Amino acid sequence: MASTIRIVFFGTGGSWPSPERNVMSIGVQIDSEVLLFDCGEGTQRQMMHTNMSFMKIKRIFITHYHGDHFLGLAGLIQTMTLNERKEPLEIYGPERTIDILTKFLNIGYYSPSFKIVLYELKGNESLDFGDYVVKVMKTKHPVPSLAYAIKEKDMPRIDRNRAKALGLNSKILEKLRKNGKIEYEGKEITIDEVSNGVRVGRKIVYSGDTAPMEEMISFAANANVLIHEATVESSLEEQANQYGHSSARQAAKIAKKANVDALLLVHISPRYKDAKIIENEAKKIFPNSRVMNDFDEFIVKVKKVQSS
Amino acid sequence: MASTIRIVFFGTGGSWPSPERNVMSIGVQIDSEVLLFDCGEGTQRQMMHTNMSFMKIKRIFITHYHGDHFLGLAGLIQTMTLNERKEPLEIYGPERTIDILTKFLNIGYYSPSFKIVLYELKGNESLDFGDYVVKVMKTKHPVPSLAYAIKEKDMPRIDRNRAKALGLNSKILEKLRKNGKIEYEGKEITIDEVSNGVRVGRKIVYSGDTAPMEEMISFAANANVLIHEATVESSLEEQANQYGHSSARQAAKIAKKANVDALLLVHISPRYKDAKIIENEAKKIFPNSRVMNDFDEFIVKVKKVQSS
Repeated sequence: MASTIRIVFFGTGGSWPSPERNVMSIGVQIDSEVLLFDCGEGTQRQMMHTNMSFMKIKRIFITHYHGDHFLGLAGLIQTMTLNERKEPLEIYGPERTIDILTKFLNIGYYSPSFKIVLYELKGNESLDFGDYVVKVMKTKHPVPSLAYAIKEKDMPRIDRNRAKALGLNSKILEKLRKNGKIEYEGKEITIDEVSNGVRVGRKIVYSGDTAPMEEMISFAANANVLIHEATVESSLEEQANQYGHSSARQAAKIAKKANVDALLLVHISPRYKDAKIIENEAKKIFPNSRVMNDFDEFIVKVKKVQSS
Repeated sequence: MASTIRIVFFGTGGSWPSPERNVMSIGVQIDSEVLLFDCGEGTQRQMMHTNMSFMKIKRIFITHYHGDHFLGLAGLIQTMTLNERKEPLEIYGPERTIDILTKFLNIGYYSPSFKIVLYELKGNESLDFGDYVVKVMKTKHPVPSLAYAIKEKDMPRIDRNRAKALGLNSKILEKLRKNGKIEYEGKEITIDEVSNGVRVGRKIVYSGDTAPMEEMISFAANANVLIHEATVESSLEEQANQYGHSSARQAAKIAKKANVDALLLVHISPRYKDAKIIENEAKKIFPNSRVMNDFDEFIVKVKKVQSS
């Protein structure tokens, strides 16, 4: 019954691209909607090497305006235009979003064939998109920078046997779940008649660029997935922290305290040809840690149900 | 004796990137100097997959301001900055270069660590860079767009035997060639004493984006290499011409009339997964035609010497 949530990593490198990793970009697909988090240079072409279509992007969330996180936007939007996109596109980002993106998206000669709506965030928002909410938090970085948490709304859990007994198919059940009640064959049926406890909504958190911060623990609390930056190994963390970045072990400590299910590490410095050292440092503190590579896919599963 | 001129193709696709081809960018190395022609999104990372260093780029020539020809500039310059480049960088382009690039290169938060000098060209210049000249011509495209011709200066051809008899090594010969005369072991030696005819300078022409144009024939006359756009096959050329593009056979006709040595085809439309049809159409008219792929390298050899 649960809809699909999958995450595809289009770029996992930090600061500048390397032969091994492109700069940051992550796609999150919720049913047929694609959300893009950051859009470093080359993101459109990275997407073309996956089965997540750049034409299906509905919303883009930019963490901050360092080039490795947003310089792919103009090319992506130009290609959408050349491929005759008509649907509007929403782009969210921190302060100066309207100033920076208005300039950037109108550079050179071309005009988008579709409406682009820019949203400038303060860093404390909770954006309601119907089935899910995106929460926003400021991070510790030298320029205005945001972390994002996607949270599916909690929903009644359907009891398959009860639903079957009443003859309700998936389409009707989905409607019932959304509306709380329906009329079916002349009878009113309420959600309580077919539900059994709560399906806890999935939660995915993306740190963006940040020095380790206490506030990330509550922001990421009990998430299914915390995607946290881990620019360097611990021996280099002091300098990294000064530049607003984290080490692998600092990310792992946050994952542990936040009680997340999985820690996925990104924004790996181009100095690492092989990121094993990053992964191993994190695993020592939080075993379910993994360094993500470009084109990796991660399916977010629904957590075990809380019985009523 | 001849210095090395090699061409590396970082991107050979037209309009937008595809899994097969990145958007346009071509590197020309003359001795240790790297000139970059166009810089589509993702060029810096394409360069990282070759042995031509993005840190050695001395001059960049932009043909026009459609995104697939320049959107990689900001990321490239940001990465040069993060890698502590100090040498100034020259960027040449058509009208609006200063307006467009001043905005683009200052987008977001960062300032280059080195001087960037922008040159806005009218489209009829001949730029003298010492050992070589870059000539500029306007092309037929919906926005201001340029073709570039790199021409090595003609030089006296050294007669190895005479030079050896006088005991002159390569370093001294190079000086003699440049100055016309030198003092060596108390005696004046003139270039005439060791030369034998003329070493004709190599010529490389890059069309940029253009509908076929008569003026390209004289502009590219007798070139060693004509790099010409061939966006489509001949059956689609009518529409392509309207958008300021050429077909393979139109490019080949120009190569033939211009009497060039080799025709290298680029800006292949993303519709072609396999560009054999483009290459074959050109070969029928001009046998020494070749569709270039990303990362292809081409060494430009000195032509047979004209005897004196």
